Amino acid sequence: MGKGITSRAEDYSAWYNELVIKADLAENSDVRGCMVIKPYGFAIWEKMKAELDRMFKETGHVNAYFPLFIPKSYLSKEADHVEGFAKECAVVTHYRLKTSESGGVIVDPEAKLEEELIIRPTSETIIWNTYKKWIQSYRDLPILINQWANVVRWEMRTRLFLRTAEFLWQEGHTAHATKEEAIEETEKMLDVYAEFAEQFMAMKVQKGRKTESERFAGALDTYCIEALMQDGKALQAGTSHFLGQNFAKAFDVQYASKEGKQEYVWASSWGVSTRLMGALIMSHSDDQGLVLPPKLAPIQVAIVPIYKGEEQLQKIAEVANKIADKLKEQGISVKFDDRDTHKPGFKFAEYELKGVPVRLALGQRDLENGTIEIARRDTLTKESCDQADVVSKVVALMKEIQDNLLNKSQGFQQTNSHHCDDYEEFKSLINKEGGFIYAHWDGTSETEEKIKNETKATIRCIPLEGSLEEGKCIYSGKPSKQRVIFAKAY
Amino acid sequence: MGKGITSRAEDYSAWYNELVIKADLAENSDVRGCMVIKPYGFAIWEKMKAELDRMFKETGHVNAYFPLFIPKSYLSKEADHVEGFAKECAVVTHYRLKTSESGGVIVDPEAKLEEELIIRPTSETIIWNTYKKWIQSYRDLPILINQWANVVRWEMRTRLFLRTAEFLWQEGHTAHATKEEAIEETEKMLDVYAEFAEQFMAMKVQKGRKTESERFAGALDTYCIEALMQDGKALQAGTSHFLGQNFAKAFDVQYASKEGKQEYVWASSWGVSTRLMGALIMSHSDDQGLVLPPKLAPIQVAIVPIYKGEEQLQKIAEVANKIADKLKEQGISVKFDDRDTHKPGFKFAEYELKGVPVRLALGQRDLENGTIEIARRDTLTKESCDQADVVSKVVALMKEIQDNLLNKSQGFQQTNSHHCDDYEEFKSLINKEGGFIYAHWDGTSETEEKIKNETKATIRCIPLEGSLEEGKCIYSGKPSKQRVIFAKAY
Repeated sequence: MGKGITSRAEDYSAWYNELVIKADLAENSDVRGCMVIKPYGFAIWEKMKAELDRMFKETGHVNAYFPLFIPKSYLSKEADHVEGFAKECAVVTHYRLKTSESGGVIVDPEAKLEEELIIRPTSETIIWNTYKKWIQSYRDLPILINQWANVVRWEMRTRLFLRTAEFLWQEGHTAHATKEEAIEETEKMLDVYAEFAEQFMAMKVQKGRKTESERFAGALDTYCIEALMQDGKALQAGTSHFLGQNFAKAFDVQYASKEGKQEYVWASSWGVSTRLMGALIMSHSDDQGLVLPPKLAPIQVAIVPIYKGEEQLQKIAEVANKIADKLKEQGISVKFDDRDTHKPGFKFAEYELKGVPVRLALGQRDLENGTIEIARRDTLTKESCDQADVVSKVVALMKEIQDNLLNKSQGFQQTNSHHCDDYEEFKSLINKEGGFIYAHWDGTSETEEKIKNETKATIRCIPLEGSLEEGKCIYSGKPSKQRVIFAKAY
Repeated sequence: MGKGITSRAEDYSAWYNELVIKADLAENSDVRGCMVIKPYGFAIWEKMKAELDRMFKETGHVNAYFPLFIPKSYLSKEADHVEGFAKECAVVTHYRLKTSESGGVIVDPEAKLEEELIIRPTSETIIWNTYKKWIQSYRDLPILINQWANVVRWEMRTRLFLRTAEFLWQEGHTAHATKEEAIEETEKMLDVYAEFAEQFMAMKVQKGRKTESERFAGALDTYCIEALMQDGKALQAGTSHFLGQNFAKAFDVQYASKEGKQEYVWASSWGVSTRLMGALIMSHSDDQGLVLPPKLAPIQVAIVPIYKGEEQLQKIAEVANKIADKLKEQGISVKFDDRDTHKPGFKFAEYELKGVPVRLALGQRDLENGTIEIARRDTLTKESCDQADVVSKVVALMKEIQDNLLNKSQGFQQTNSHHCDDYEEFKSLINKEGGFIYAHWDGTSETEEKIKNETKATIRCIPLEGSLEEGKCIYSGKPSKQRVIFAKAY
């Protein structure tokens, strides 16, 4: 605290790293690539979780829990899947330690597992191995299950929230009788993610489908939501996969249809993770620190007393506590900060750093005038207000700030989205301004890869929305039926 | 479904295993010792979690998240701790798979970790390694953190919920400036557990302290709550540990006191796990299936229509849905089961098996008379009731059933608690009746172990409540100041 953070203009990457640490969100642990999510960061994640969980349940899903461990042979059953995850697997090989003759503790060589266990990087294989036992007939379908869990992918270059070896997420795994139902589910959950991103995170996203080379390992189709960060880079914020019958075939999961025929089951899977924390931070925050949308802020209002001496504090506390109680009755979370160890200026900076949406300040003069100062974190503006009006004003501000952040995010995305039909201009845009570049592409992985190698831009998605338009590939000049979104990405 | 379960009298152990499976609570996965918690079982666990989490927060705790992996050297830093956990550790040794020349997937020998990682069996070491960075001064204390997580202990003989290689739990880890504060915290959290067990699980528990030989590895004192199952065996349902300065010393965590002296920090840790599911099941359930206390039942009321033909069903559904809506307004979770694939008798048996506290049945005759049938799961009694009274009646029943289950549990424990001063009688009691045996003990581990070897009874705890009483050890005849509780245990 106290010392500011690097500005975004100066060094965006340093700004992000410092902000995560200084706002007490998370830190690197001593275990390579694994983070500690600190209480303030975790409180935000808990709010995200609660809303997502409610949305999943409202769309008919139930929670369950499957093992952390996946036998190596299961992971190998779906060829693309193992290909996609083999290079980043944490592998358990032994189940016991023992005291070595030289004194320390060593892995007991006699306690070697017959088959190695992989720490789940995702749970399709262990879950479909289980579904095989649960599904016999069409009456057993659909299965609409979600799991909140930790997963491990041994990433070499890690970054707090954005890319860590262990992360927290939810993974939905559904089983359906028909292809249409499974696709409908895949699309429905993408809509849930988009709604969550926009209505709770106040983060505008583009919905789309991934190209073949960016698909989930084992999926026939991967849908995604893509958000644009303030540095002009894209961030994939959630994915929903249509898995076809790939896992049903790999684990031989068939059901008897109404007509009595044996059919393979159709599947979807979908997930969002603690990566959303990174997206949230980079969407709204500024050089003063974190900016949180009210719906996800653990503390929505902080009240800071400005006083000299115990007597003044007591009088201020009386008024402040009444206001706090009334705000709490409105379902608003309030913290009255009467710590005598820190000065008001320090507290102001702290709540700015931590992204508290509204700060109230109450001093001796306010008591005399029946006023109170209201400061908005999103606009950094202040105004004086009658104490009689403060509750209704703050209630209104919760909505106003939430809306304003979404509007800003929408505006930012709009301003930084470019239609481009010239490859030289494309390269210049990507390198200088970033943003979403809507360009024509010939549909081949070869072109996609060449563009990536030359510019570092990848196809973020083939957008679901927006009008179709014929054109020529920006790279090869071959015909294209639709613009796709290119960007550099996290 | 359909087929009944083995009775408790016939084979208690088989009864439990069958009940867990048939009530759709959990099943064994194909991964040795790891369970799949099925949606219905997980919904009960979610209710437990929500209440415990609320209670933790009300007592000033916050949630956070620490890494799944513990470097082997960390685990080794506290001597008793590593001794206690070394024999049941899942060890990660590699971080990559690769395609073998013969075609399959193998562990890449070149991706060997420099230091092996242990899957956390409990998180004291990784957390105290982190607290070292967070604690400099008395102003940084206390730290009151809880974590909801999965942990792994490589148990050789596993049983659904009661003992599994991977299980879900919460672990509180607190840091304090003084010994007194840490002990106060340890005792406070034991009280929270006891209150949860009695007020939500409707399960009477005894609070006590463990003997030295039963203490948590690394603790100076372990407090516990012990419950008595219907077969006369005890089950440890939660533990709270006073860790002294053991972990602070192992990880060199010191703070500057108000007087400017460097002092080691004092610690507590406390946890309950999915084992509570086993305790809940075995406390109340009967030969018809699960019995759930209303406060933890995912479905509190099931409404079953008894009808012939679509027209009757429609009329019944109209009344049933109105009742359901009114019950929901009272915060009661209701399921109206209008499946036409199953007969009423099947549904009755299903809700009995699944422990739904209240079942309502509504038929043509009821429509004519304005009545409805109410069945209680706890007493298996039925009565007819005016439709006009059913909502208030059901609301009252929620409390009545909850209270009745706790009363039964208290009565059962009382009936099966024996004071015993004669070792021959003790052996006979333990072998024939089981239960809690309050007996004098000379305080030595030798005597404790001899009794264990001869009778399989262990000292469950040294009770915190009840009057002190001098006496002679039931085994050695040496002086004793207090009776302790012996029992066979899960």
